[in-house]
Amino acid sequence: MIKILVDCFGGDHCPEAPVLGALAAMERNPEVYLLLTGDESVLKKQLEGKAYDKSRLEIVHAPEVIGCDEKPTDVVRLKRNSSMMKAIILLRDRDDIAGMVSVGSTGALVTGALVRLGRIPGIIRPAFCPILPTMDGGLVGVCDSGANLIVTPAHLRQFAIMSSLYMCNVYGVESPRVALLNVGKEAEKGDDIRQETYRLLQETPSVHFVGNMESRDLLSGKYNIVVADGFSGNVLVKTTEGTALELLKKIRKDIYSRTLYKMGALLMKKMFREEKEFMNYQNYGGSVLLGTSKVVVKGHGSSDAKAVETCIGQAYRMETSGLNRQIEAEIAKYEHFEE
Amino acid sequence: MIKILVDCFGGDHCPEAPVLGALAAMERNPEVYLLLTGDESVLKKQLEGKAYDKSRLEIVHAPEVIGCDEKPTDVVRLKRNSSMMKAIILLRDRDDIAGMVSVGSTGALVTGALVRLGRIPGIIRPAFCPILPTMDGGLVGVCDSGANLIVTPAHLRQFAIMSSLYMCNVYGVESPRVALLNVGKEAEKGDDIRQETYRLLQETPSVHFVGNMESRDLLSGKYNIVVADGFSGNVLVKTTEGTALELLKKIRKDIYSRTLYKMGALLMKKMFREEKEFMNYQNYGGSVLLGTSKVVVKGHGSSDAKAVETCIGQAYRMETSGLNRQIEAEIAKYEHFEE
Repeated sequence: MIKILVDCFGGDHCPEAPVLGALAAMERNPEVYLLLTGDESVLKKQLEGKAYDKSRLEIVHAPEVIGCDEKPTDVVRLKRNSSMMKAIILLRDRDDIAGMVSVGSTGALVTGALVRLGRIPGIIRPAFCPILPTMDGGLVGVCDSGANLIVTPAHLRQFAIMSSLYMCNVYGVESPRVALLNVGKEAEKGDDIRQETYRLLQETPSVHFVGNMESRDLLSGKYNIVVADGFSGNVLVKTTEGTALELLKKIRKDIYSRTLYKMGALLMKKMFREEKEFMNYQNYGGSVLLGTSKVVVKGHGSSDAKAVETCIGQAYRMETSGLNRQIEAEIAKYEHFEE
Repeated sequence: MIKILVDCFGGDHCPEAPVLGALAAMERNPEVYLLLTGDESVLKKQLEGKAYDKSRLEIVHAPEVIGCDEKPTDVVRLKRNSSMMKAIILLRDRDDIAGMVSVGSTGALVTGALVRLGRIPGIIRPAFCPILPTMDGGLVGVCDSGANLIVTPAHLRQFAIMSSLYMCNVYGVESPRVALLNVGKEAEKGDDIRQETYRLLQETPSVHFVGNMESRDLLSGKYNIVVADGFSGNVLVKTTEGTALELLKKIRKDIYSRTLYKMGALLMKKMFREEKEFMNYQNYGGSVLLGTSKVVVKGHGSSDAKAVETCIGQAYRMETSGLNRQIEAEIAKYEHFEE
């Protein structure tokens, strides 16, 4: 049995989406045991009348609520009885719990996880790794996408090692092709950090490094992992998401501008629906935090029940594949990292 | 008469695209006088049989060719008789020439312009400012998009001032809404540079600063200018371009997968063509280099004749609007900039 905490009070559709996602994940996988954190009475009401295996579900009472504008450090210090912080503390204290899923505040989750959970031995900085679909039907992960705004080449090398193992273990991609986000393809492009990282990655047998990537090639399918500082990685992921959404929105608006287009679109209804589903990042799971001592999966704030279910599945696979132990073993091969 | 140099040996379609673009610009605007740089015999052949006002066109012989893999610094030092370097040197030496247009190597152009042309008094660092279409039919400029990978808050403030004046003078946007590219909206988001820049921009009356922008909102129409370091600005622009192209390519491929979709698409042919044109960044002009003592416009390497014509039009408007003098006057208001 794999025990996973689900923070039920975060995101746009709480507590419905986390609770229903949790029940769906239990239904799908009999090896999953879930602990839901949040206001007990609200959660009980939410579960009322639902059919589920009561021997594999627990409610952990956590009545405090995190406000939208609260500083992450304040949340970590002062809101120990919020659904998120309670989950983090339980995850730290109980050896029988493998991981947690949250769709709440990213800042609070990162800060809380870093401060309370600690890191895999050898890891300097945990990093986020969201997964995006590529146009040829494959997947690409971006690591880091926001946990570390300032990085060193040693950090970036660790991101490459961690995310390669993640891609391989959780998504079954053998020897993932890893690229470094840069302003041009040539080895000498970019600032000192990029140039030194390029050199380091070439000397890292644990990583199948294929060179620099220009951001216009993210969705091309040529790469499985893109390594970046958290600032530009964040820009890369959010710009992709934003452009796709805005473009589909524009097409939709243009269709409604003329009857002829509406007729055409009617014939293509199924295609447009598939296009939208294809670009719906929720379908590809949450953004995992790699490098913390226990599994942490962060779902999008707008996650629905299906997205939460996917996040729980990710956490399960991360734990059962032994990802963290593999990361520890691989990192140990590169003895000395500068902090 | 406004004299503008056109580098005719750069980009994917040279010399046809630059030459035909030059002739179209002359045809459209009787105030334009063009100097084409490149191999004289090739250019003469290209002009053969074309009707144009010979009193407003000059060929400047520049036979050397810049290779794809040549380092920008080598080009600047060693290729003085290449079409690009010849243009830069003439621009520097001749007071009667206002600006230049090139679709050649970005690295060589930036390095050459910085080394040979010098800057507007008070400007610390020139910066690129490409223009993108927003989904509501407006425009948004990103400054910097690659000329300065490492920046300070003082640099970013200058980018904001320069690009605001550019947006206003060349595109007629009154009091452009300026945002700072960041990982979140709140003032305290981002690293020290972002936080300090936020503060600085609030204290800059020359700039209509509206706060931080998350990259997913670039095309929303909420902003006219986004200020960024050259690395993340480059990621922002190229990711937008890449995502739009890949998505339109995928839709096209999916249409061809089923007869029903093909029929639907037939009815929507005009719409899809317009969509493609809308996302074709060439239609919105080149990426101008703001802050150099003379006007420099860099067109996309894949520019066709129409795109080159648009770039020449931009250079003309930059000169006739007195943009550089306005930049100098505005920058002078903020006496002390740290280098």
